This record gives sequence, C-alpha cells and structure tokens, in this order.
Amino acid sequence: MSRERLYLYDTTLRDGQQTQGVQFSVAEKIALAEALDAIGIDYIEGGWPGANPTDSEFFAVRPETEAVFTAFGMTKRAGRSAANDEVLAGVMNAGTPAVCLVGKSHDYHVTAALGITLEENLENIRASIAHVVASGREALFDAEHFFDGFKANRAYALESVQAAYVAGARWVVLCDTNGGTLPHEVAEAVAAVIATGVPGDHLGIHCHDDTGQAVAASLAAVMAGARQIQGTLNGLGERCGNANLTSLIPTLLLKEPFASRFETAISREALAGLTQLSRKLDDILNRVPLRSAPYVGASAFAHKAGLHASAILKDPTTYEHVEPSLVGNARLIPMSNQAGQSNLRARLVGMGIEVEPKDPRLAAILDEIKRREDHGYAYDGAQASFELVARRELGLLPAFFEVERYRVTVERKRDARGRIGSLSEAVVVVNIGGQRTLSVSEGIVEDGSDGGPVNALSKALAKDLGPYQHFIDDMKLVDFRVRITQGGTEAVTRVIIDSEDGKGQRWSTVGVSPNIVDASFEALLDSITWKLLRDGAAPV
Amino acid sequence: MSRERLYLYDTTLRDGQQTQGVQFSVAEKIALAEALDAIGIDYIEGGWPGANPTDSEFFAVRPETEAVFTAFGMTKRAGRSAANDEVLAGVMNAGTPAVCLVGKSHDYHVTAALGITLEENLENIRASIAHVVASGREALFDAEHFFDGFKANRAYALESVQAAYVAGARWVVLCDTNGGTLPHEVAEAVAAVIATGVPGDHLGIHCHDDTGQAVAASLAAVMAGARQIQGTLNGLGERCGNANLTSLIPTLLLKEPFASRFETAISREALAGLTQLSRKLDDILNRVPLRSAPYVGASAFAHKAGLHASAILKDPTTYEHVEPSLVGNARLIPMSNQAGQSNLRARLVGMGIEVEPKDPRLAAILDEIKRREDHGYAYDGAQASFELVARRELGLLPAFFEVERYRVTVERKRDARGRIGSLSEAVVVVNIGGQRTLSVSEGIVEDGSDGGPVNALSKALAKDLGPYQHFIDDMKLVDFRVRITQGGTEAVTRVIIDSEDGKGQRWSTVGVSPNIVDASFEALLDSITWKLLRDGAAPV
Repeated sequence: MSRERLYLYDTTLRDGQQTQGVQFSVAEKIALAEALDAIGIDYIEGGWPGANPTDSEFFAVRPETEAVFTAFGMTKRAGRSAANDEVLAGVMNAGTPAVCLVGKSHDYHVTAALGITLEENLENIRASIAHVVASGREALFDAEHFFDGFKANRAYALESVQAAYVAGARWVVLCDTNGGTLPHEVAEAVAAVIATGVPGDHLGIHCHDDTGQAVAASLAAVMAGARQIQGTLNGLGERCGNANLTSLIPTLLLKEPFASRFETAISREALAGLTQLSRKLDDILNRVPLRSAPYVGASAFAHKAGLHASAILKDPTTYEHVEPSLVGNARLIPMSNQAGQSNLRARLVGMGIEVEPKDPRLAAILDEIKRREDHGYAYDGAQASFELVARRELGLLPAFFEVERYRVTVERKRDARGRIGSLSEAVVVVNIGGQRTLSVSEGIVEDGSDGGPVNALSKALAKDLGPYQHFIDDMKLVDFRVRITQGGTEAVTRVIIDSEDGKGQRWSTVGVSPNIVDASFEALLDSITWKLLRDGAAPV
Repeated sequence: MSRERLYLYDTTLRDGQQTQGVQFSVAEKIALAEALDAIGIDYIEGGWPGANPTDSEFFAVRPETEAVFTAFGMTKRAGRSAANDEVLAGVMNAGTPAVCLVGKSHDYHVTAALGITLEENLENIRASIAHVVASGREALFDAEHFFDGFKANRAYALESVQAAYVAGARWVVLCDTNGGTLPHEVAEAVAAVIATGVPGDHLGIHCHDDTGQAVAASLAAVMAGARQIQGTLNGLGERCGNANLTSLIPTLLLKEPFASRFETAISREALAGLTQLSRKLDDILNRVPLRSAPYVGASAFAHKAGLHASAILKDPTTYEHVEPSLVGNARLIPMSNQAGQSNLRARLVGMGIEVEPKDPRLAAILDEIKRREDHGYAYDGAQASFELVARRELGLLPAFFEVERYRVTVERKRDARGRIGSLSEAVVVVNIGGQRTLSVSEGIVEDGSDGGPVNALSKALAKDLGPYQHFIDDMKLVDFRVRITQGGTEAVTRVIIDSEDGKGQRWSTVGVSPNIVDASFEALLDSITWKLLRDGAAPV
C-alpha cells in the first residue's frame, strides 16, 4: 500500500528563537540548518530577513540545503501594495525558494490589533500570497490565532485561510498562537477547514505547548487530515515552547497508525541521529539536556532497579515502548549488566586499549564512572577525562607531575587615577620527579584587561613544566563551559574545557567541585595530562 | 446542571520516586503530603509499606489528611492465601483507609515474568482485592501493562480488570506502564472496558510520558469515561515521568469541556497555589524549575516577540490562553533586541513606571540595552538587571551603597594531615552614606567543604550592609548560570544569578566580564540592589 507523504517544517531558527534567553549567532544558525538538513527535515524556516541584523546576515550566507529554505515575514500592511511594502520586500529579497507569511485569522485581532477592516485583512492576505506566487516562490500562510478565531468567528477564520489557499498558497498553516487549544478541538477545526475545500495535503499545523499537549494536538491534526507539521527541536519556543519535533518524529516513524500510513523524508539511519541532534542544540545553547525528554532524554530508557529489576534482566524490551537505538539513545540498566561492559570494551578499543571480556577491571571502571557521575561528572562531552579514569583503573596512567599547591587572588579596587578595575594573579607549585617549580602569572588577556582567575591559573600552570614544556607549548584553551549541577545532595560546578594543539587535535576534559576555580583546575590538569599521554611524553 | 465528580490521585511519593536520582526522606514525604492535601488532591499514595525503611517509617508517622491516604503494594503471590502473603501483610499493616495493589493484565507478563498460569493470576487479583475489601478498606487495582495487554490479548486484559471490579475494587486503574500508548488508543481501550460493565466512575487512568502525551492520553481517558486520574507533581516519575498533575489540574479546572462537566476537590483558591506547590517540590529536590513548564513555568506567560508587544500592551489576554494569576503565576514581558519601544513601555508599566509614548528616554534606554548586549549582556533572562538599567536612565535608581574594593583568594594545598583541599576567602569594603564597613567571609558551604570564590564573595557582601541588613537577610541564591560569550571581539563570561526571598519572590540578574569573579560580583550587586528597591529601602 502506498503511503501518504507527511511534511516536517522546522522553525527552531525562527519561532524557537522566541525562547527566553535564546539568541542564535549566524554561525550557530548555519550549524543547526546543516544538522536539520542532514536529518531530512522538509522545510527549514531560517528567520525573518530584515527584522534584525543576525537574520539578515544569516540569509545572505545560508548553507545550500536539500530542505526547502524558507524566509518568514508578515502579510503586507493595508494602504500599500505588496510590491511597495518594504517589510515584505526585505523578506522577498532574501531570495529563498519559499516564503511563509503570517497573517490574522481572528477577527478581534484584525480590528483591535491591526485597526483595519475584516475585508482589508483578507485583501492583504490575498495580495501578499499572490505576490509571493508571482515571484515564482512557494508561498505558505501562517494563520495566526486561527483556533481562537475559529471559536470567536468561525466563518471569518475559515474565510481567511480560504483566501490564502485560493491566492495560491502551497500550504495554509493553522496556528494555535496562544497554545491553549486542546487536541480534540484542533481535530474538529482541521476537519472544518478541509470541509471548506482546502485539501489536507495543503494544510499544516503549528501548535504550542501551553497545556502540555502540543505533540498530541499536532498528531490529532494529522489524523484529521493535515499533512504538514511545524515544530522545533527540543520543543524550543516562546512561553512553554512549540510542538517538539524531537518527540514527534519518532512517533511518526515508529508508531501506528502513523508509521504505516505516512512517509517522511527522514530515513531510519537519520532517525538514529536524533538523540545526537537534540544534544547538539543543547550544547549550542549551553543548556543541560532534559533527562526526561521523550525518546532522546538520558533517562528515557533508564530502568531503576526495583519491582521490575529481574524482569528487565530477562527481557528489557518488555519494559520499553521502542528500542532505544532506533533514536540513537541507549538503555540505562544496573552497572553489573553485560551490555555495559561490552560497550566499555568497544570504547577502550577506540583508545587503543584491549581488555579481555569479563576482566574484573571492566566492572571497576564502570563503578568508578558511576560513582563520579553521582558526584556531578559527565563524560559524554569529556572523552579525554573518561580515558584518564579508565587508564587509572587499568594501571595505564603514568604520573607525569604533581601540583603541590596553588593560590589565586582576584582583587578589584581603584587605581591611582581613581578608575576601578580588577587584577587576577595565580601562584602554582609543581613537583616533577622531585624537582619543585614555583610559577606566577597574572590573568591579563590580549587587550590588557583582566581575564580572571582561571586564565591566571592556566598560564601559571603552563609556564614551566620543565621536561614536558615542549609538549604543551602548542596547546590552547578553545572553549570553556560551566554548569551548576547536582553532586549527590549538594549543588556543584561542572567545568568542561575544550583544548586544541598545533596539529589540530582537539580534546575535552571535565572537572567538578563546589568551587569553580577548583573545578576548572581539575579540567586543566586533565587536559595537560591527556596531551602528554597522547604525544608519548616519557614520565620523569 | 450538576457536574460529575472527577478524582485526582497523586503518586508523587511512590511512582515519582522512581525518577533517577530521587529519594525522598520521611520529612520530605510529610511536607509533600501536607501540601498535596492542602491543594485538594483526593488520594495520596504514600509509598510501599514494607518495601524499604523510609516508606515503612513514613506510614508510621504519616500526617492526618482530608485526602484518602493510600498504601501501595502488589497482589498476593501464587501458592499462598492473601492472608498468608507477608508482602501484602506489610502493606495492610500500614492501616491506611485505602490500599492500591498492582497486578498483571498482560498475558505475556503473567507467564514470562511471574511464571504462573493466566487463571492463577486472575485468582491472585480476586483474592487480594477481596482481602482488602474484607478488612474494611477501600481497594484499588492498578492493572499493569494494561494497554500492551489489550493489544496482545484483549480478552485476557479485560478479564483481569473485570476480576478486580467484581471482587470489590472501588477503582480499577488502567496503567500504561511502558508509556507508549497513544491518546486515541487509550480512549478506545477505556471505552472497551466500560462496555464490559466496569462503570466509568470506577475506572482510573495512569499514564507515562514516553511519547510526550501523558497529559493528552489522561484527558482522552476522561473524555472516554474514566473518572480518576493518577499522576505526579511536575510529571516526576521513571524514564520520561508520569502524567503531570501540575499541567492536568489547570486544564481540568479552566478549560472546556472539562470545567463545565466535572468538579474536583480543588478550589479556585487552591488552584492559585499551584505554581508555589510546583516550586516547593523542585525546592525539596534541589532542582532548577523548568522555565517552560505549562501553567507554572517562569516562562509560561513570558512574551518576547516585538511583533506582539504592542497588542499585548493593548490587551495582554489576547496573547494568553488563561490568566496567569489563576494558577499563581505572573506575566513576564522580557526585553531582547527584537523588542521595540512598545515592549519597553509594557515592561516599565510592569515595574510601576509610566512613561509617555515617544519620551526620548525610551530610546536612551534601548540604546543602553543594545550597547550592553553588544558587550555580552543578555536581559531576557535577567529582568531585575534590566529594571536597574532602565531606572538608571530614568533617574529613578537611588544609590544605596558603594563597594570600594574587594579581594578574593582561593588557596589549594595540603593540610597538616596531608589531605589536599581548598579554601576561599573574600574581603569586601562597602561604603554606606560615608560609613565604611570591612567584612570578611570564607566560602564554606553546609557540608563543610569549600564553596568557592563566588560563595565567599556573596557571604562577605551580605554580612554587614548596616541599615539595609534586614532587607537582605531572607535572600538566597537559588541558581547560578555561566556562559562564555562574545563581548565585542573578546570572549567574556556572562553570569546569571537567580535569587529568592522569604516571600517566595524570585528575580534574576546578570553580570559580564572576562573575569568570572567580577561578572558574578556584578550580578550579586544587582540582585541586592533590586531587592532593596523592591522592598522600599530608604537610601541613607
């Protein structure tokens, strides 16, 4: 049986940016657009060209994509032609193959917010969509407040989407702008729109999660006939967020009746990259990934030992609604389990270390990692530190040097001319094979300002490592991420440092402590140790 | 028209404890039970008496509640009578007015996991429920894996719930143990159970969020006839969590068709305590509250889009699906570079400051914000710092005090017994109306370990603010977020601090500097200044 085509429209880069605290840079938008394209999203809405410098620049340099690249804007204002509306012109000038224009479909918003007549609004919709179509682009119409409008003045709401469709819109998208519409109401309204003659394969749905039902409402719309879903990665978006594509995609591909009835552009292979894609976005936003996220959360397939423990050991799949690897996630089960050890062995091989199956040191490494994770460490993004933990347990980590003590001072005060400023200073005492070295550095950065205690500490540490010095001369810190997290019952600081060397080699290390300077110091030490190890430095 | 009664069953203290990393103490269980009772939950499931020492102790000292206090356990094992099953005896001995027993309804689990015959399992259900009823308690039956069982062997799944109902169960609860059942499937199964003769007002629903639809599936069950909903506060629970009562309750009380058709034991006054209840649980778990949580999240009523801001000023309700105060939440109109003067005026009104449209100071504030954003500041997650910038431009910010200088030291070394450890110390000199105060603090946290330089600085600063001291005594830091970002051409550190006071007031401030200690200090200063301003402290 041939399956119907279902289209996925991502608005992470536009509506997702409405999230409090989210502001993508051009480079971040490019990285996300490429990742969305790779997974098989049909439409990528990049932003609103002309609305702000970042979006304008992004559209100027946007990557080539398989996905239909879409510029967002609004329907023309009243009292001018579509061609003479400079806001619309800004959107058109981005030259994208598709243009999505938002317009009003709720009568109250037309008269109260826009202050124009209902007929003027319909004319703005018609003229704007026709203008996009005439330019040879694919036109989409986002019907703002459609569902509230449908309740308040059903005839007008239906008329507005009809107007867009008749004017040539490839897609008319019903938007639950305030997010309060329940799934059964969405289904009813979708059916009503289809009854007016807008075919389901020209109808999209755009939900928000204000009652925690954006995913369910989007699926209800599909079951009622809509064939495009708009959403965002990780449910990013204003207020409670948009419909979460990261939850929707696996349900559409793996669950009935969707899996048999519909096809998307997302392959099974791409689906297995979903967890990684979700983490990538969190990484860009420096957010802690939500452990409980459906499908992609770290806890989504975690079985807590208890009532079910023995049954889970017999057959874990009876306690899972889907197989975790299908979405690139992993089962989390008690550490003694066989699967944990074989994963570990594979990872060790990647570091050039062969360990026999059932070697008791495998369990010891897993226990140590578990103990550290309970204290707030995270090794997903810190491969180099993971390798050091494993090598320590295996007796394969040489002692290159020891830091006997350090002291860091930050002082902020007025200088002789009365200007306030700060200065950081670090003293480090290192012992290399019995030889003590005392180094001191200020945390002054390139432009002469104070770079802070971690900068000072990093410089003091790298100042004189005696026989190892030439191994670390080409090392530099390229990124530094800080998160407050749980370590047992206390809040601790987790620092992840990315380092790079002259050969372009890049590695990440982690440190954890209630004290941010200590946590940074631990990650710095790991970074240097890993570099000495990797470059074959001989311990003194 | 008389409304049907809908019952709410909370399992935060039992199933909620299956969350990774969650382990309530007896005192925490008591505090939560009292809070759940105060809001008007019908049933509170306290745990499994006999399964672990905490649960046993909790049932021994549990508070008196209006809610029906419920002990959880499992149906008797095969090969012994209900009276002679010591696990069931442990549950019964807790002496609660209600007992909820979980049992199998999926044939595969009966034969594979329990290793007994299908008929033995039915007999275990019947005998166990009858035993509870004979003891004069209210009996509930949790039908584990009901929906998977319904797909695999519909007749047997229906027979198992029938058995419990006929044996006298007040409630038969259909559990989607693996969380993979979609809302329309839940509705279909509920209708099938009712068709076998189990009345809807004896039927409950227990969903998990593995596809992000636990709320929708629970509501679908109610629309299909079920009259009890089981869930947890904040959607706590194993894997992706249980159905979130914090999302369900407002929808049931405020949204149609539920509000007109059903009544619960939750009053409008109690509903207005929901946000506080949600935060209380996060507080106990020391978790950062989810900003995007429906109804109760800090962002749930936050408006960012500049496009909507002028309409929001005219009538905020047009961009909100419910009035935030109904659930004890508040509207937030954050700033961002997407915002225009109308957004700004709306935000100022929220601070109690009226500025005429086109007042040139509006442009001056926006310029200053823009300048700061270019240096790495971000204000849409730092409302309080934004208010301070605006007030400074408007000449409405009193000079409460000045910090003349500070010095922070972090020292890591071996103590007399050779153990390595660190100690942070901060000295702060404050000038209040010409009066200089010198304060010193160590960064020692509750468990005696070093909390680091920011902790020491924060304590020294709050140690002696003279005439302002009583305004800041109830202040505490609840979250601290760090991001390395671009400030002009240099990388700078942005620190955002969330503070809270004894009144439950919560505010966020931002600081930016290449030096993380300086950035933190700036955010700390803003936090104290905002608190003094908000509480009406008179400048000296």
